[in-house]
Amino acid sequence: MDIAQTIQQMASEAKKAAAVISRCTSDQKNRVLTAMADLLEQQAEWIFQENRKDLERAAAAGLSAAMIDRLTVSEKTIASMAAGLREVAAYADPVGTMGETQIRPNGLRVARMRIPLGVIGIIYESRPNVTIDAAGLCLKSGNAVILRGGSEAIHSNQALAGIIAKALESAGLPAQAAQVIPTEDRQAINALLAQEEYVDLIIPRGGEGLIRFVVAHSKIPVLKHYKGVCHVFVDESADLGMAEAIAFNAKVQRPGVCNALETLLVHQAVAEKFLPAVARRMRAAGVELRGCDRTLALLPDITLATEADWPAEYLDLILAVKVVDDMDAAMAHIARFGSSHTEAIVTSDYHRSQRFLREVDASVVLVNASTRFNDGGQLGLGAEMGISTSKLHAFGPMGLEELTTRKFVVLGDGQVRE
Amino acid sequence: MDIAQTIQQMASEAKKAAAVISRCTSDQKNRVLTAMADLLEQQAEWIFQENRKDLERAAAAGLSAAMIDRLTVSEKTIASMAAGLREVAAYADPVGTMGETQIRPNGLRVARMRIPLGVIGIIYESRPNVTIDAAGLCLKSGNAVILRGGSEAIHSNQALAGIIAKALESAGLPAQAAQVIPTEDRQAINALLAQEEYVDLIIPRGGEGLIRFVVAHSKIPVLKHYKGVCHVFVDESADLGMAEAIAFNAKVQRPGVCNALETLLVHQAVAEKFLPAVARRMRAAGVELRGCDRTLALLPDITLATEADWPAEYLDLILAVKVVDDMDAAMAHIARFGSSHTEAIVTSDYHRSQRFLREVDASVVLVNASTRFNDGGQLGLGAEMGISTSKLHAFGPMGLEELTTRKFVVLGDGQVRE
Repeated sequence: MDIAQTIQQMASEAKKAAAVISRCTSDQKNRVLTAMADLLEQQAEWIFQENRKDLERAAAAGLSAAMIDRLTVSEKTIASMAAGLREVAAYADPVGTMGETQIRPNGLRVARMRIPLGVIGIIYESRPNVTIDAAGLCLKSGNAVILRGGSEAIHSNQALAGIIAKALESAGLPAQAAQVIPTEDRQAINALLAQEEYVDLIIPRGGEGLIRFVVAHSKIPVLKHYKGVCHVFVDESADLGMAEAIAFNAKVQRPGVCNALETLLVHQAVAEKFLPAVARRMRAAGVELRGCDRTLALLPDITLATEADWPAEYLDLILAVKVVDDMDAAMAHIARFGSSHTEAIVTSDYHRSQRFLREVDASVVLVNASTRFNDGGQLGLGAEMGISTSKLHAFGPMGLEELTTRKFVVLGDGQVRE
Repeated sequence: MDIAQTIQQMASEAKKAAAVISRCTSDQKNRVLTAMADLLEQQAEWIFQENRKDLERAAAAGLSAAMIDRLTVSEKTIASMAAGLREVAAYADPVGTMGETQIRPNGLRVARMRIPLGVIGIIYESRPNVTIDAAGLCLKSGNAVILRGGSEAIHSNQALAGIIAKALESAGLPAQAAQVIPTEDRQAINALLAQEEYVDLIIPRGGEGLIRFVVAHSKIPVLKHYKGVCHVFVDESADLGMAEAIAFNAKVQRPGVCNALETLLVHQAVAEKFLPAVARRMRAAGVELRGCDRTLALLPDITLATEADWPAEYLDLILAVKVVDDMDAAMAHIARFGSSHTEAIVTSDYHRSQRFLREVDASVVLVNASTRFNDGGQLGLGAEMGISTSKLHAFGPMGLEELTTRKFVVLGDGQVRE
């Protein structure tokens, strides 16, 4: 069989398995997740052995230390994957839940029932733990899943696939409910993106290049975010101590992630008082500052920002700083350079807080809190499958509920339409 | 300017107008809708005059009487468009509404606020009333809209576009919030489907050919349904009088629509008692029956169904009939030939009703009610924008809420991430 045929067969088997997994009780699905966790711990040595094959090849290919770090499955990785699965097993199952029932004038009772999406394809890069995390979330939400990890992690991912298959079988469920594509060939991605008959959703997780490739080639709906160019706007009415703490946390606590602060916007009325203090603290933590000319008038020894800085997602200890006339100017800057990801205001003014919340276009908008809270766990969704910055279906962090949809259920007593 | 440039400019202006319309109060938007209704009535003579140009051309081109009927704007069409707009103006506005607020352990208050999707593209066929109905729903839900009707209705649609523009302007809002593409050239559709930078959603309304063309060419997410192959399953425990009334209503009340019954599935235990009575009633109403061999054993003078009948969407007074062994066989038939649209069971058995509701894959699943209730108005959504049979974002009839999405709003008091 060629690759296209292999993928088509995997997809068609996934669809059959999806019908089975969609009907499982939460108990059955939780048994699979805890069996996966147990097997990961019991077979850790074998996983390390398979992971070493990937690591040796990566070293021989001269991959960077950072890449090799991401690829490594350690005792800690195993413990964290197992703990994650047990946590997801403990979450409430959205499948089958219904909201309010409406009674129509003719007596029909109408409600909406949560159901799985069907088959989800996940395309990701080097971290092997995504294989386990994504499979856990998809199975818990009653979906079948087809996983395609980075080619450099092929042995690790195949080993993890073996664990998932055993866990499914131990619970009497089809192993086809969670499959890992067994080839390094990139054609497999194109083939997967063409299975619109069997696959209901594609979620790419990785760099912007991967995501743009997936969007350009997919015939299947894609949930995605390209990048996070996040802002904090310090209003003239802000508590400046609070503003400093929020900006510092948003930039420094974990600079390499999509919800980290990239550009600080400061109201002109407080710039003189606020900027020197926050700059001192940022620079003490190793943050490079790049400011507009009004910022440089207050902080003469920093770099002048160029036009390339405003749309930049540094993912690093670099911060762009801009002094703005007022909140309108801040919101115009965000509308132009933001990425619909995460935007925050620090203010003590009621009207501005409400206007910022309503009018700023982002998946998460915060008042007086760090941008780092755009995270499924922090916002109460439990573990997340990524963050969507496209508005259709899901906007913001995607938890179990975002891996489902709702159908209408209608209970009658013989009603017909007049 | 060539067509691609014209469309790009329309799309980019729509995006700017979307920011304005997204911030309007319900009062402002309702004023636009009622102004549209008033202008339709005041300028009816001019609309008839423009419509006559389309009708004359259609007659000269030899279009069918049915096509010409769909194209005609009558006094009744005007009255119905105006009444529809006033009805939508009276609906609750979803924009800005928030559900429950969750309190996180650190005191953050997290809620989800409904926001418009942005710019919606609607591609449809001959009926000019869609121009008004779709514009009304998009504007009320705070979206900008680009409308592309059938080329045979170009004069009528341009006249209606003039009405919409005047109504927007009379309320002090940008006319670019609702634009009708002013050319008959089909290249305009391709150009619109490529505006992924400006357009957030495409909704095609029309025949399967149009919808497949849109899906194949769009770089923008599409909400669609291809067809409705709807079933009624008459269980052995059914009240047979109720089953007959439901099947008759589902088939005959309006056979040309997507939620009409196409295949009747009958449990073998009641076939002998049920089929002769329902067949008599159907045939008296002019319905042609096509049955499986077990059906023919009971109704020897009807046509034998072929393999082409089971997946058929007749949209006509034709009904396929199949006798099945049990509910499992009925559900297997639906899983194979259904179109995820509307499926109904008639039963008095608690367990079967619940299993059918849970396990059947359709946007609307009914117990003891006619399939004709898959309709936004009937299910309590108000006017609808069409019915989605793809699961992402919306599944089933789409009302105002389905033209919005939700962002997270987070209220803090200085929280930072540990």
